[in-house]
Amino acid sequence: MREPRRIDELDTPAAIVDVDRMTANLDRMAEYARRHGLALRPHIKTHKTPELASEQLRRGAAGLTVATVREAEVMAAVCEDLLLAYPPVGARRLERLLALPRHVHITVALDSLDAIDALARAARLAEREVVVRVEADVGMGRVGVAQSEDLIALARAVRERPPLAFGGLQFYAGHIRQRVSEQEDSLMRLSADVAALIADLEAAGFAPPVVSGGSTPAAFTAHRVKGMGETRPGTYIFNDRTTAAIDACAWDDCAYTVLATVVSNAVPGQAVVDAGSKALFREDVRGNSMPGFGALLDRPEVIVKAMSEEHGMLDLAKTDWRPRVGEQVRIVPNHVCVSVNLHPVLWGVRGDTIETRWTVAARGWTS
Amino acid sequence: MREPRRIDELDTPAAIVDVDRMTANLDRMAEYARRHGLALRPHIKTHKTPELASEQLRRGAAGLTVATVREAEVMAAVCEDLLLAYPPVGARRLERLLALPRHVHITVALDSLDAIDALARAARLAEREVVVRVEADVGMGRVGVAQSEDLIALARAVRERPPLAFGGLQFYAGHIRQRVSEQEDSLMRLSADVAALIADLEAAGFAPPVVSGGSTPAAFTAHRVKGMGETRPGTYIFNDRTTAAIDACAWDDCAYTVLATVVSNAVPGQAVVDAGSKALFREDVRGNSMPGFGALLDRPEVIVKAMSEEHGMLDLAKTDWRPRVGEQVRIVPNHVCVSVNLHPVLWGVRGDTIETRWTVAARGWTS
Repeated sequence: MREPRRIDELDTPAAIVDVDRMTANLDRMAEYARRHGLALRPHIKTHKTPELASEQLRRGAAGLTVATVREAEVMAAVCEDLLLAYPPVGARRLERLLALPRHVHITVALDSLDAIDALARAARLAEREVVVRVEADVGMGRVGVAQSEDLIALARAVRERPPLAFGGLQFYAGHIRQRVSEQEDSLMRLSADVAALIADLEAAGFAPPVVSGGSTPAAFTAHRVKGMGETRPGTYIFNDRTTAAIDACAWDDCAYTVLATVVSNAVPGQAVVDAGSKALFREDVRGNSMPGFGALLDRPEVIVKAMSEEHGMLDLAKTDWRPRVGEQVRIVPNHVCVSVNLHPVLWGVRGDTIETRWTVAARGWTS
Repeated sequence: MREPRRIDELDTPAAIVDVDRMTANLDRMAEYARRHGLALRPHIKTHKTPELASEQLRRGAAGLTVATVREAEVMAAVCEDLLLAYPPVGARRLERLLALPRHVHITVALDSLDAIDALARAARLAEREVVVRVEADVGMGRVGVAQSEDLIALARAVRERPPLAFGGLQFYAGHIRQRVSEQEDSLMRLSADVAALIADLEAAGFAPPVVSGGSTPAAFTAHRVKGMGETRPGTYIFNDRTTAAIDACAWDDCAYTVLATVVSNAVPGQAVVDAGSKALFREDVRGNSMPGFGALLDRPEVIVKAMSEEHGMLDLAKTDWRPRVGEQVRIVPNHVCVSVNLHPVLWGVRGDTIETRWTVAARGWTS
């Protein structure tokens, strides 16, 4: 069949990227980091696409952040400086990590002596330097150690185990996801906590070469966290309904949508589209109690009120719009990272014209 | 790298299928359908894997049910009788549907005159018969028409538009998902409603050649819906935490798990594993208010209480078990269909031995 040239020639559901909006999002973050002297190391879990990582690197990104070894393997083709922001636990994972092309500079972040021991053994066998950052829990309660003495013990263990090299302090303040205007107290607390951790590490002889944090919800205040030199936002390349809901972007900055077709309007008050939980993902808006699983790009008052795997139920209660069967709509999902991960292909568009297609190459965990 | 032979050689997260349990699940449903003279047309959206569809067909399945044209394209390699249980709306979808290999017998279910018109035009152009079932809404409120006169109008429209052929009545009682012991009233109402629809269609001269329903939550009472001759369960091949929670299967009938590795135990009271929402999916148990997003196969009292994309937080409150970093666990997800869809590969195991790997070939919507 012919390659589609316009959006209305696409079979649905399909993942669409507005190239101009994405470009503006990339430029804005690169400019922010440059202005404040922050190293930008974007998290590519959002797009999992080497061509888009290259766009980030072309704008001055210092390297890339990845969550899985699969992502590292794919991104090694376009970047020589990779941070695995995930505990490298397990023999197979270590084997794959150390089998990355030799020219790739590998950094990891971890939070346990067990993981340091296993990594050190694997790195010695591979005769390969691995830079290790110690991971602090600054309030999210997911991974990381909360106490300075534990951080120092980890840093010491790293330094005692060449070819591991101590690379600094890392944290992820993912708990800061309220409205931007309400983040001030959390930001001040974070800044004080990070400053204390840095001071304690310094006093123990482990001055961190890099202090790395950052996230999309608090992306543009990263420079206010004292001592932080690197930021790792991911979502900002596309943004999503959650990011807009907390004012961390404007609605018009949403660059990613799921194109869908109205397949039924038999039940009054709703329209059924062919994008359900297997295309949008099922996740509530976080940091703001908005209902639904997505909203129409051109009619944000129309939300996806319910879903099955391949059905999305549009709520027509707040609109006079009555779509016909066959009409296309574009849906901004609540959380873009988990929606992109459901799609094999991203279609890059300008207006209604399809300019390119990218393969979401780093999905899954194995090649 | 060498192909893994045992579970502990797998990189994680990985999707695991217990072959013996799956075989028992397949045999049980095939035997039930045979005993009650029901045609079994399994919905393959659960596994999306041609080899597993072949296992269903080998046990006497009358054909397969699919939700997407992509699934139809992939399953056409193993089955000549496909039901697209989804409105075939949109020019590109119709084009792909009618481009299926000519030996494949195509049936669709739909609920609008617009869809019938478009399908009839496409079928005429392709010079190809398409069997059309009319879809009734029996209480779920998703797709389908609720009134007999609307069903009759659809059936008439089909008959007036060769090469479309009227194929009967279809419905999906997905709203019946309470505990099996509490389904009786819903089942009686469904049976009465379906009988009335059949009678009205018959009286109007549209006796349905097939009446098709069925689902996993109410799988083993399908024979009690008067007039129903075909059943379309999907989840039963693997089962999941939701199916077990409503007693539609036993816990030991859960054949699918996500293998994960403990990557951190730094935060007291929890263990973090490397299976998060990108491996398990994020969906509540339905029909029963159980917390969490999955539970350990061998310790069902340990649930996944929270998730990030690549992190699952195990709640250790109800157990004395304290896993070490590096330990593997197997997680039964709340909803198996959406978890399988996140994995490129299924590993078929007996005990700890890997017997085979299958590619989940029908993921996504395009080839």
